[in-house]
Amino acid sequence: MRKRIEVVADVLETNEAAAQENRRLLDQAGVVAINVLSAPGSGKTALLEKTIPALKPRPCTVLVGDLQTSRDAERLAAVTSQVVQINTGGGCHLSAEEVAEGLKRLKLERASVLFIENVGNMVCPVSFDLGEHARVALLSVPEGDDKVAKYPSLFQSADVILLTKTDLLSVLEFRVQLVRDDLARINTRAPLIELSTKTGAGMDQWLAWLSTRIDGIGV
Amino acid sequence: MRKRIEVVADVLETNEAAAQENRRLLDQAGVVAINVLSAPGSGKTALLEKTIPALKPRPCTVLVGDLQTSRDAERLAAVTSQVVQINTGGGCHLSAEEVAEGLKRLKLERASVLFIENVGNMVCPVSFDLGEHARVALLSVPEGDDKVAKYPSLFQSADVILLTKTDLLSVLEFRVQLVRDDLARINTRAPLIELSTKTGAGMDQWLAWLSTRIDGIGV
Repeated sequence: MRKRIEVVADVLETNEAAAQENRRLLDQAGVVAINVLSAPGSGKTALLEKTIPALKPRPCTVLVGDLQTSRDAERLAAVTSQVVQINTGGGCHLSAEEVAEGLKRLKLERASVLFIENVGNMVCPVSFDLGEHARVALLSVPEGDDKVAKYPSLFQSADVILLTKTDLLSVLEFRVQLVRDDLARINTRAPLIELSTKTGAGMDQWLAWLSTRIDGIGV
Repeated sequence: MRKRIEVVADVLETNEAAAQENRRLLDQAGVVAINVLSAPGSGKTALLEKTIPALKPRPCTVLVGDLQTSRDAERLAAVTSQVVQINTGGGCHLSAEEVAEGLKRLKLERASVLFIENVGNMVCPVSFDLGEHARVALLSVPEGDDKVAKYPSLFQSADVILLTKTDLLSVLEFRVQLVRDDLARINTRAPLIELSTKTGAGMDQWLAWLSTRIDGIGV
């Protein structure tokens, strides 16, 4: 077990060096990078499909991580001309090195925002800094109201938390207050925004948070 | 990167030895072990809440894996007197060694079925044999119909696949046929059972599969 822990540390050290280099490149190009994390099926791609057109005139680019397929990239190609799919092969998270490879294939000078849609997973991506400027964690209503308590590291590391698919609150049992209480114990700095990409509810609040963040960090 | 791959192999070798020992102990006690895998929030606990009472008079035991909390074990304590929570402390899957520790705390001679509810994750648990006799993979309707193509290893390794929360098929866009087509490419031996623990639809089919499996493998 000891050996395993040491190696994970090695991997994280290498990752951190690459993450810092990514951040330097992004800063130089004046691009704000947002790392989007959640379980599979929480609505990361649907969120970006609605967010990118709403951020106009800011040009957005996307790196999409998946174990297999390019389905998410194909969906996002409809809203941005600059989208690169990264297939991790079986890896359960994106690494900063993989993001560095992806960055080479993007024209950063033509972008002001980079969304990194991470592999759908509530555990593995948390420890891997990709060089992002802010981290967004999604939790969808169908996943259940116990997930903040069960996966605290993910929600602890986030700068904003989006409760998605709130249109399903009327058909599913879900205690939003429980989520708020669990969050209050582990992360008091990140706001919780309730939204539905289907009805559009909460999108204004999310776009306001994002714009402040982009204009605050960016050039 | 090379070093990392070698160590993962070491971990899997150690795991496999422990898994074989678990299987030997379970066989000796005449207990059939079922490893239940899925993303977070696909309804693993809800499934066991409905399944265990329906399997009577067969006495069931449960090992529940989670990063944190004992919420699932607390829910399952209502339907079985033998339930043990294993907190992985951040680990994204159960290991055979953790299951071995759990087995010591159960009275196997009083059981005929052991359900192992794995950590909610579509990647990490796949490579770890826990000593089970059969593997069940859940996919819930709200996660989306693209998940078999995106996480083939999980569905490839399963002996039966449950499409859960089918009561939501009326309110969500979900192509069951796409899931069937994707499955046909990677796993032709495992049946796909559509079910809803809320309405009870499909439970008969699942219980029939399970009973055959238990009585076929068991004593």
